[in-house]
This record gives sequence, C-alpha cells and structure tokens, in this order.
Amino acid sequence: MKVHNFSAGPGILPEEVLRKASEAVINFNNLGLSLLEISHRSQDFEEVMEKARGLVKELFGLGNDYDVLFLQGGASLQFYMVPMNLLKTKAAYINTGTWASEAIADAKKVGTIDVIASSEDKKFTYIPKKFTVPKDADYLHFTSNNTIYGSQWKEFPKTDLPLVCDMSSDIFSKQIDASKFSLIYAGAQKNMGPAGTTMIAYKKEIMGKTGRSLPKMLDYEANAKKDSMLNTPPVFAVYVSMLTMEWLKNNGGLPWIEKVNEMKSNTFYSALDHNPLFKGTVEKEDRSQMNATFLLKNEKLEPEFDKLLKEAGISGLRGHRSVGGYRASMYNALPLESVNVLTSVMREMANKFG
Amino acid sequence: MKVHNFSAGPGILPEEVLRKASEAVINFNNLGLSLLEISHRSQDFEEVMEKARGLVKELFGLGNDYDVLFLQGGASLQFYMVPMNLLKTKAAYINTGTWASEAIADAKKVGTIDVIASSEDKKFTYIPKKFTVPKDADYLHFTSNNTIYGSQWKEFPKTDLPLVCDMSSDIFSKQIDASKFSLIYAGAQKNMGPAGTTMIAYKKEIMGKTGRSLPKMLDYEANAKKDSMLNTPPVFAVYVSMLTMEWLKNNGGLPWIEKVNEMKSNTFYSALDHNPLFKGTVEKEDRSQMNATFLLKNEKLEPEFDKLLKEAGISGLRGHRSVGGYRASMYNALPLESVNVLTSVMREMANKFG
Repeated sequence: MKVHNFSAGPGILPEEVLRKASEAVINFNNLGLSLLEISHRSQDFEEVMEKARGLVKELFGLGNDYDVLFLQGGASLQFYMVPMNLLKTKAAYINTGTWASEAIADAKKVGTIDVIASSEDKKFTYIPKKFTVPKDADYLHFTSNNTIYGSQWKEFPKTDLPLVCDMSSDIFSKQIDASKFSLIYAGAQKNMGPAGTTMIAYKKEIMGKTGRSLPKMLDYEANAKKDSMLNTPPVFAVYVSMLTMEWLKNNGGLPWIEKVNEMKSNTFYSALDHNPLFKGTVEKEDRSQMNATFLLKNEKLEPEFDKLLKEAGISGLRGHRSVGGYRASMYNALPLESVNVLTSVMREMANKFG
Repeated sequence: MKVHNFSAGPGILPEEVLRKASEAVINFNNLGLSLLEISHRSQDFEEVMEKARGLVKELFGLGNDYDVLFLQGGASLQFYMVPMNLLKTKAAYINTGTWASEAIADAKKVGTIDVIASSEDKKFTYIPKKFTVPKDADYLHFTSNNTIYGSQWKEFPKTDLPLVCDMSSDIFSKQIDASKFSLIYAGAQKNMGPAGTTMIAYKKEIMGKTGRSLPKMLDYEANAKKDSMLNTPPVFAVYVSMLTMEWLKNNGGLPWIEKVNEMKSNTFYSALDHNPLFKGTVEKEDRSQMNATFLLKNEKLEPEFDKLLKEAGISGLRGHRSVGGYRASMYNALPLESVNVLTSVMREMANKFG
C-alpha cells in the first residue's frame, strides 16, 4: 500500500531523488565505488559540492556578493554560530515558537539580545505584526516558518538592519526576494534534503565585524575559504540535497513549487474549515503552507480518526509531542494526492460522527 | 572490474553494509518509507540510535560509567568541544601531525595549552617516546593514528590525568583497554561508517567541572541528556555506522579484526621492505597499520607506477596533497586480496625497473 508521508521532518523526498541516492550508495557515477567510500577531494565529489552550492544561488537568484555553505550541526548549531559571527554589541530577535526561543537562548550566551516581539502570550498561535526594530542592533533574527506551532510569515519584517532568517521548514517552498536577507540558514531535512547538513547563504559584506577570534569550524569565512570542506563534509547529505534541488529546478523552480504548494495548502485548509469536527490552531492569516496544525474539537474521537488514518496509509500526522493534536506537513515533495486522501478521511469522520 | 579501494577517508565500507544502506534509502524496515524521510522520533529510528550507542560500548567493553554520543561536525568540531567541556585552567597536548596541530590551535582559543611533546622536528615521521606529563593539567590529549603522516601509537601514553584521544583513523581496528581513556572521539568516515557523524565516548565523572556555560549543541551533557537527539541527528550516517559496527561484531569483534589488520599490514610492510624501489616514510616501530605512507625512491617512476595501479583497479593510493608520495589506507573493510594486488604491482615495478 502507498504510504502518504506527512512527517514534519525528516520529511518526504521526491521518489526519483531516493532512487538516485540508493543507487549512488552502491555505485556512484559508474566509478564502481560507493559515494560513501570515495574521497571528498575526488573530482566526482567536488563537483557535487560545487553544484549544490550553485543551485542554492540559482534557485534564490543570488549573485556573487553571497557565499553558500553546507555545514553540519543542524539549524541548532546556527543558533550559536550566527551571534558568534555577527553579534558585536546587541541583536534583535523575534520569538514565534520553540526554535526561535532556542535561537534566543543560545544568542544570549554571546551578547545582549533584544526580543522585540513575541507571540508567546497566545501560545505562538500568530505572527506578531507590530514591533519596532532598534536602529542600533547588529542584525534582526526571525524564523520564517514555525514547524511545531504551524505559523508562517507571509510578509517578512521590514528593516534596514541585516536580516537573518532560520528558513529550515519552508526554504524553497515559494518565491521570495532572497536578496533582502543578509543571512539565511536551513537544516536540510524538511524541504531541501535529508538530515545531516545545514545550508547557510550569506552576504559576504556582513562578515568580519565582531573582532572575535573563532574556532575554525564555527567561522563562516574560514569555511567559505575552503569551499565548505574545512574537514570532511557530510558527503551523502550534500549529495541528496543537490539531487533534491536539481529536481526542483528541473520541474520549474520556485514559481512552479509555489503553485503546487498553494494548491495543496488551499485544498487542506478549505477542507478543514468546512469540516465541523476539526479546527485549526493558528490565526487564519498566519497559517503555514508547510505545517498545518489542527485539532479534533472532541478529543475522544482521536482513536477513531487514528484508525481511519492508518487504514488510508497516512503516516506522520500526529502533532509535535510538546503540543499534541495533529499536524499535516505538506513539504515540496508531498503529492496533492496525499492531501486529497487526508481530506477525504476527515470528511469520512464528519459523515460518521458529525 | 573490481576496484581496490585504498582511500584514506571517506574510506572503504563492507559490501553488505552498503547493500543494506542502499535498500534502506528506498524502504526502511519494510515501512514502505525511506530511512531519509521518517521522523527521528519514530520507534524505528530510536532503535537505530540506541543500538549504535550500545555497540560502541559493547565493542569497547565499556560500562555504564560511560556515555556515548553520535554528533555532527567531524573530529574537527571536537577540537573545540573538548576544551570547552573539559579545560578549566590548563591542558596537555602531544603534537604528532596535522590534526593534532589543529586540535592544539582550537584548544588555545579556550585556555592554556602545554604542548608536552612533538614530532614536528622530523616532519612527524615518528611518535614521541619521552615526555613528562604535568600533574596540574586538566587532561592529556593525543591522536592515536596520524592519517596523513602514517604513524600510530603502539603503546598509549601513561598518565593519571584524564586521557583524551582522537581515534578517528584507527578506532575499532584492534583490541585496546578503552577504560584507560576518559574521552575518545572519532569521525566515522574512516573505520566506523560514512562521513557525517562523530562518535564521542566519555566517562561521565569528568564532566561539569569547568563552570563554563555552553551553548546546547556544544555541551556533551546536554546532548547526552537527550540521547544524542537534542536536534535532528544525522540519521543516515548513524544508521550506516550502526550497520558497520554490527558487521564487525558479527564477524568476531576487535579480536577478529586485530588479526585481519595485522595480516594486512604485515603483508604490506614486508613487501615494502623487500622491494628495492620503494621506501616507507615513518620510523618502522611507529608505522601505522591503517595508513602506510611510502615513496618511490626515484620519483621519475611515478607515472609508470600510477599506470600499473590504474590497470590493476587500485584507487585512492596517492598521498595527502600536503605530503605527496603514496599512502595505502588499509581500513577494517579492506580485504587482504586488495593488499596482495597492490604488493604484486609493486613487485612488477621492481621486476621492470629494479
């Protein structure tokens, strides 16, 4: 039976990407060797790294004033690396959920952090709209999509400060003006590839201003100087990310995926709002296209719903253990068909118990 | 044609491991889902992580006074994490090559480093034998095997200080008394798995003594508290490491592989010493069983040698770009047959040009 994979991350990847990745584990580029057992300094892998870095620039339309890195440690290591590389005196942060809070906690170990807006007062069910960005901060940090709470920025904060964004869970999901950002980072395992690598794209001019002496691995410029190969990179994760970006590009890039994702999320939210048994957990205008969080109004029906989900082959729909409920993660590679199967199960619930 | 893979890292992995890894990329544990697109919080993956951590303890014979982590960032990130977690006032380091030097450079960013011995005077062609370990240091750090220069410690330094070791390139290659070490770390991509994860095993009692407040991702105890899943772990790299350790265990563990590796390195070095065209670059008593570095006495014969190597399907034999020459990396998964093919090519050279 086909599995409909709504996992919040590591998330669904395109079938052709998985096929190529599986093949490369046995025989990469017809070398008679596995991708896992060749030197990262071989021409074959250096081309993969080059291509991966190039595809980020191409998909985002970024020029040579940007550097692109593929590092390790997840977005969580960036919570520390960003302030270590950019924070001189003070930085402004916006708190919209679990990961934004973690970013703030780690940044506080480096310098003064001004939390200029937060939606914690209403359990992170909305995106703050009114806030003042201090002129004297070194940068403004925010999280474009909140995987756990299911909210998403539809218009990005406006500021003259360098804008820094954790895009882990909605990178490459729609068209954006990436040149408005001074630094974008994203753990690959939601919309860009498998777990095990983190992409960082930054405007070169923002670096080298703190006077801080950094250990090599935490220094963006030291990593850039070595083309993301200061030490052995996470070869397989970079390769699969490259394949996933190639798949995206070959299908029409961000203009194409934006339409696909709009179709999927409109289909889902429309079904949700027309179904008497369920309700969304986030303000309508701030709902995430990637992670739709929702509840059964009557919790007692959960076992019935879970049973139908299982019968329909729907996987990964349970909400994050910290918030409960349900969450439909509709990443780039999720087919519309899977959304349709989910909404029909929800309708079936309404027919039975509505 | 069969390829004989002498790559120094990422290095050769067992065929059955590659087969299982390739299969898991398509369909993991018969879930109908790829290993790359399931939650790291799923029971299926939590079992993988548990098993990987357990196998380290089992192979090393370590008890519950040790914690085992699988993190990201390579051994190079450990160069910084070790002093951040352990260095209060001063630490002692031994410099035996490129990676030992890098470890020293990053540790100096944290505190006072006493380099108590070094083989830099003779281009790292030997292992220092005489040195005094200061009593007032927080720990002693050394590198058990030097991948680039091809030297290896045959007897470990004796000290009452906590002993910390970078075992990246000879971990699980022979029997050792692991309980003598307070902390062992290793990038997986040489003898333990693919690139993308780093194993750290440490005695719990050595932690929490610096008074330093660490960002979460760099804090061993914070990572241990969450069973190496503070954030999304490098799922695939941990899985393949687990498979590789399982392969080792099922074949007889360290007693078995020690014999295999002795056989391979004896075969190689004996052929090297009996061949008039070649010479080893390291003091005989300090030669590495994992990375045998050697030269053609007459450099002009290199193109001839390279041609014969290629014809024989021998891959990855060139020395590190910083030192030149040749290097036969004979990691656990390299079959004796490959060593025999290499030594016969070397004999063929001697017959032609000797």
